[in-house]
Amino acid sequence: MARESTVAHGPEHGLERMIFFSDAVFAIVITLLVIDIHAPHLPHGSPDRDYWISLVNLTPELIGFFISFFVIGFFWAGHHRTLSLASHYSQKLLFPNLMLLVTVAAMPFFTAFASANPSTRVPVLCYCGWLAIAGAANRRLQTIVTSVPVVDEAVSADLIAATRERGTSVILGALTGMAVGWFVPVAGQVMLCTIPLWRLMLRKLSARPR
Amino acid sequence: MARESTVAHGPEHGLERMIFFSDAVFAIVITLLVIDIHAPHLPHGSPDRDYWISLVNLTPELIGFFISFFVIGFFWAGHHRTLSLASHYSQKLLFPNLMLLVTVAAMPFFTAFASANPSTRVPVLCYCGWLAIAGAANRRLQTIVTSVPVVDEAVSADLIAATRERGTSVILGALTGMAVGWFVPVAGQVMLCTIPLWRLMLRKLSARPR
Amino acid sequence: MARESTVAHGPEHGLERMIFFSDAVFAIVITLLVIDIHAPHLPHGSPDRDYWISLVNLTPELIGFFISFFVIGFFWAGHHRTLSLASHYSQKLLFPNLMLLVTVAAMPFFTAFASANPSTRVPVLCYCGWLAIAGAANRRLQTIVTSVPVVDEAVSADLIAATRERGTSVILGALTGMAVGWFVPVAGQVMLCTIPLWRLMLRKLSARPR
Amino acid sequence: MARESTVAHGPEHGLERMIFFSDAVFAIVITLLVIDIHAPHLPHGSPDRDYWISLVNLTPELIGFFISFFVIGFFWAGHHRTLSLASHYSQKLLFPNLMLLVTVAAMPFFTAFASANPSTRVPVLCYCGWLAIAGAANRRLQTIVTSVPVVDEAVSADLIAATRERGTSVILGALTGMAVGWFVPVAGQVMLCTIPLWRLMLRKLSARPR
Repeated sequence: MARESTVAHGPEHGLERMIFFSDAVFAIVITLLVIDIHAPHLPHGSPDRDYWISLVNLTPELIGFFISFFVIGFFWAGHHRTLSLASHYSQKLLFPNLMLLVTVAAMPFFTAFASANPSTRVPVLCYCGWLAIAGAANRRLQTIVTSVPVVDEAVSADLIAATRERGTSVILGALTGMAVGWFVPVAGQVMLCTIPLWRLMLRKLSARPR
Repeated sequence: MARESTVAHGPEHGLERMIFFSDAVFAIVITLLVIDIHAPHLPHGSPDRDYWISLVNLTPELIGFFISFFVIGFFWAGHHRTLSLASHYSQKLLFPNLMLLVTVAAMPFFTAFASANPSTRVPVLCYCGWLAIAGAANRRLQTIVTSVPVVDEAVSADLIAATRERGTSVILGALTGMAVGWFVPVAGQVMLCTIPLWRLMLRKLSARPR
Repeated sequence: MARESTVAHGPEHGLERMIFFSDAVFAIVITLLVIDIHAPHLPHGSPDRDYWISLVNLTPELIGFFISFFVIGFFWAGHHRTLSLASHYSQKLLFPNLMLLVTVAAMPFFTAFASANPSTRVPVLCYCGWLAIAGAANRRLQTIVTSVPVVDEAVSADLIAATRERGTSVILGALTGMAVGWFVPVAGQVMLCTIPLWRLMLRKLSARPR
Repeated sequence: MARESTVAHGPEHGLERMIFFSDAVFAIVITLLVIDIHAPHLPHGSPDRDYWISLVNLTPELIGFFISFFVIGFFWAGHHRTLSLASHYSQKLLFPNLMLLVTVAAMPFFTAFASANPSTRVPVLCYCGWLAIAGAANRRLQTIVTSVPVVDEAVSADLIAATRERGTSVILGALTGMAVGWFVPVAGQVMLCTIPLWRLMLRKLSARPR
């Protein structure tokens, strides 16, 4: 008794609708980030200097917005890259994908918490810690997508390994951010820049003769 | 005189655009849930303990966010699964689909009401009651999708029965939540976990020799 | 020198991307309506009665939400129906489509204005008046879609006439709402129910032997 | 070793998903603009005149909404037009596209800043200045899309030149707005109307015999 959800629209439809839904969630989250930044409203006739100062005071919020925009943008790009390796829909994808999306959807909260209390230990730990959780959800989805029965048969073992290494490097970078942020809060989120370094290191470690 | 809306783009286009629109509404609703959770803003230099306490105080909101995220996520997945059985567009789908979407779009309001007043009878009854209404709208759409002229001819009677049982179990689970929540408010939303149990029971009841 | 934007993806791509963008705008607007309804927050331990009263006090907002949800839902369905008659993209569609979208995107503002000041002349006039403007933008887009070079050649003259009559009936219904709302504010938005009547009347008027 | 992300879904899939994601971001940003305009709430029984005055007081916000709606709408249309020249996906597109989207996603902030402080030098300079930055991000994306390996082989050199000229004219118009806004703040945003003039001028300058 085949109880697949893909009776009517062919084997790829389930995959496409899941990708579509995820893209929409990523797009909304990335755009909502700006909502929490309230434009300053000054009394009419204030000197130009006051306007510039009011903008400078928003620096933590603006930096937080840009960091989170690119963090979520890269999660989207990673989702994009990972799902492009799939060619069979499976019900097994549903819950892990929702788990990733819920971690992404909660990012604006942690962004706002870190921006409202800049260079403070707890918000920085929460931000990087949540990113590590999101990274773990991402990594779990990658494992399922790059395994039977979801993965496309034409995908090479090397490409699968590289994809998973990317996912692992996000978790390692976020944990680095937590470790550094514990001692030097202001440097915590900066440590997310180590993600590409972790990826290179993992790539090196896994290199084998071909 | 054929006055169908599907003249120009073939028979499936109407269905696809309806699915697309619904997906977008689900995605937006699921992402908006987080907007109502305001990140705490503490005086600079507050001790770490105060930051942790400020987060602990948000527990009802965060739990409410996660419950509603998965409730709406499963509604989306159910919509996905149901519409995958359709292969003909009909104007009859339009209003019932909008009815389902309006119940889903109002979920953030009932989520916020329940989160702002945790473990309180009326908000719990409203939350579960609204879920029962959303479940009924969902069930009505399922009936239309799994009937002539919308349903795909290749879909088996058993799959149709299973789909409808899923829909019915959501209503039963929400009503269970209302009944329990009346006496023990804190346990109301927890009772939504009975939805899969109701589904299994309905499956058992409908089992017939083949 | 052909300077069409459809070089690379075939003649329908421009149309699809415009439909997609419009669908997303409709979906977001329809979902944002609920954001302005703030869930009541009562002191812990308030009697059940106070919770019910707090909900009853929100009645104007909730009614406004439902009216606007279906108003925008029907605009979406009409856009859907109209664009299904098109089969050629033209740059001429771009600006009229944006005009329709801007009127739709502003609906939450007029909805909130009418809900915050229920049964009051000016907000009701503004709501119905803006709907008439949205209806006019819609009607203009319909004219372009159902004309050369956009319209699909297989579409019958009768279907074109029926589509345009639908558009005209929205304007007439909104103007009826304004006229009635001037004297009896509470009845203004109710008059939107006359839209299907206006449609039937226009249909009758245009009936000709075949 | 081909490590392209397009293994499973054919060469155009990466492009489509990027376009889709961008469309969703444009649609959300354009719709969020209205959120910052709060509907006036007057005491019950206020004279009609007070309601009209409350709307008139919102004029700067409403004008700001319409300007930004069309600014973003035209950015979307330009993105649409530019990407229609592409037919090959490349990882090189990812970051420049995100850069464009982040500038677009921040527009509601600058719109609100300019609307809350109408006809004031600093907000007008920021608005036009940010638009120039968005224009530069747009122009950079256009260069990549209209170059090897992304561009469709069938696109003429003239169409490429025209596309780039459009992008350049946005930057020139925004800079004109900054220059004029420095001396006459109220005229700054009005100067965005010079964008089509700059385009015509660039077209003239690049005209060559054929």
